[in-house]
Amino acid sequence: MEIQIAAAKVNKYATSESGDTFEVVERHNGGVSVVLADGQTSGRGAKASSQLVVRKVIGLLAEGVRDGAAARAASDTLFTDKKGKVICTLNIASVDLHSGTIVLTRNNPAPMFICRADSIDRIDGESIPLGTSRDVRPLITEIAIEPSLIIVIYTDGLTHAGSRRGTPMNVADTIQSLMEDENPSPQLLADTLLAQAVRLDENRPVDDISVLVLKVSPLNGDNVRRMTVRLPIERHVKA
Amino acid sequence: MEIQIAAAKVNKYATSESGDTFEVVERHNGGVSVVLADGQTSGRGAKASSQLVVRKVIGLLAEGVRDGAAARAASDTLFTDKKGKVICTLNIASVDLHSGTIVLTRNNPAPMFICRADSIDRIDGESIPLGTSRDVRPLITEIAIEPSLIIVIYTDGLTHAGSRRGTPMNVADTIQSLMEDENPSPQLLADTLLAQAVRLDENRPVDDISVLVLKVSPLNGDNVRRMTVRLPIERHVKA
Repeated sequence: MEIQIAAAKVNKYATSESGDTFEVVERHNGGVSVVLADGQTSGRGAKASSQLVVRKVIGLLAEGVRDGAAARAASDTLFTDKKGKVICTLNIASVDLHSGTIVLTRNNPAPMFICRADSIDRIDGESIPLGTSRDVRPLITEIAIEPSLIIVIYTDGLTHAGSRRGTPMNVADTIQSLMEDENPSPQLLADTLLAQAVRLDENRPVDDISVLVLKVSPLNGDNVRRMTVRLPIERHVKA
Repeated sequence: MEIQIAAAKVNKYATSESGDTFEVVERHNGGVSVVLADGQTSGRGAKASSQLVVRKVIGLLAEGVRDGAAARAASDTLFTDKKGKVICTLNIASVDLHSGTIVLTRNNPAPMFICRADSIDRIDGESIPLGTSRDVRPLITEIAIEPSLIIVIYTDGLTHAGSRRGTPMNVADTIQSLMEDENPSPQLLADTLLAQAVRLDENRPVDDISVLVLKVSPLNGDNVRRMTVRLPIERHVKA
């Protein structure tokens, strides 16, 4: 089998820094973890919070700390550092090669979706962000790695897209219609969800939006691990 | 403009863990850094060293420490931790949006290549790995971000491919012939270099091999940041 992960991210309109932070890290004993955090508000302050959380989490995961404990530690760090005044959502998706499972850790009111060949499950148990109080606990969902599994995770910029204009985003319907296509790639899923949200916000995203899609497929080719990154920089670089 | 980064990596034949570690991290003030380390020997011990180095470096970069200082700190950490008995190569390629430059930090005897429209420069100034002594200094090369710039970085598994069989890899020739194609993607460059090395090792790589390619292009489409990861797992997951 192989795991394919795709992430796509845009900034809130007219802000140069996203309050969302997304990183991929190799796990201590093989496998990878992808970590997505969304700091309260947007711009530099939000970025600092989400970077603080992601940095704490990936540091702990790299040392072999379990995902739930890493999330709780990050929450305590944020709570202590910001005195409970700043909150931050967190999602961790870990491919654990030892247990043969995907571990999904969630401190985010936004739901996530687990799609299999014949079902789309919306995971929306109540979940609170990090930093709200001491001892914030994540919701943890562990599922076996099996072909045609697709997991969709996102920040609330996706959920809220279009809502100010009375044309709210329907994430479930969009995923449903994409799943009817033959074997959609994770990049197509992430890009299509993001593009629809941006369209509903009339090309001026009201919030930072990040979409993360993880897919399990039959092994399709070689044993090469690959990573690609695309970073648009037009507006940032000095002339 | 946009930056595209591609990495491809295989393990030494019949080892389940690569001694090479590769991570991408967002920089403190925008931009990204890609960090590649190769721990001495292969397998678990090498992995531990290269993870130690990469973790130290990305932690410091995320805090805003400059690349050269991060490399020196990682070297001291490795030297102290392993009492000078374990060495590890390190390359950092940073896209610095504030200076409008790419900063290349190198503690690796293996050369790197900087390709422009009409030239291919081999950067092979003497450079020693981390952990060899106190106060190891990296070689730093800083170049302006400009379209059609391509940077190729790799671990010594690429350099040594085929050499035991008397058919050594010629990295420069392979890059030269790829550059004659129209506008090769970084993924094509990385994949082709890696595939040739694996072929020269008769499909049983003698060492871990990692190839990292960074390319600057005109902005080609939207403002979306993207990342994809592919992780083959056939041989690892428990039945």
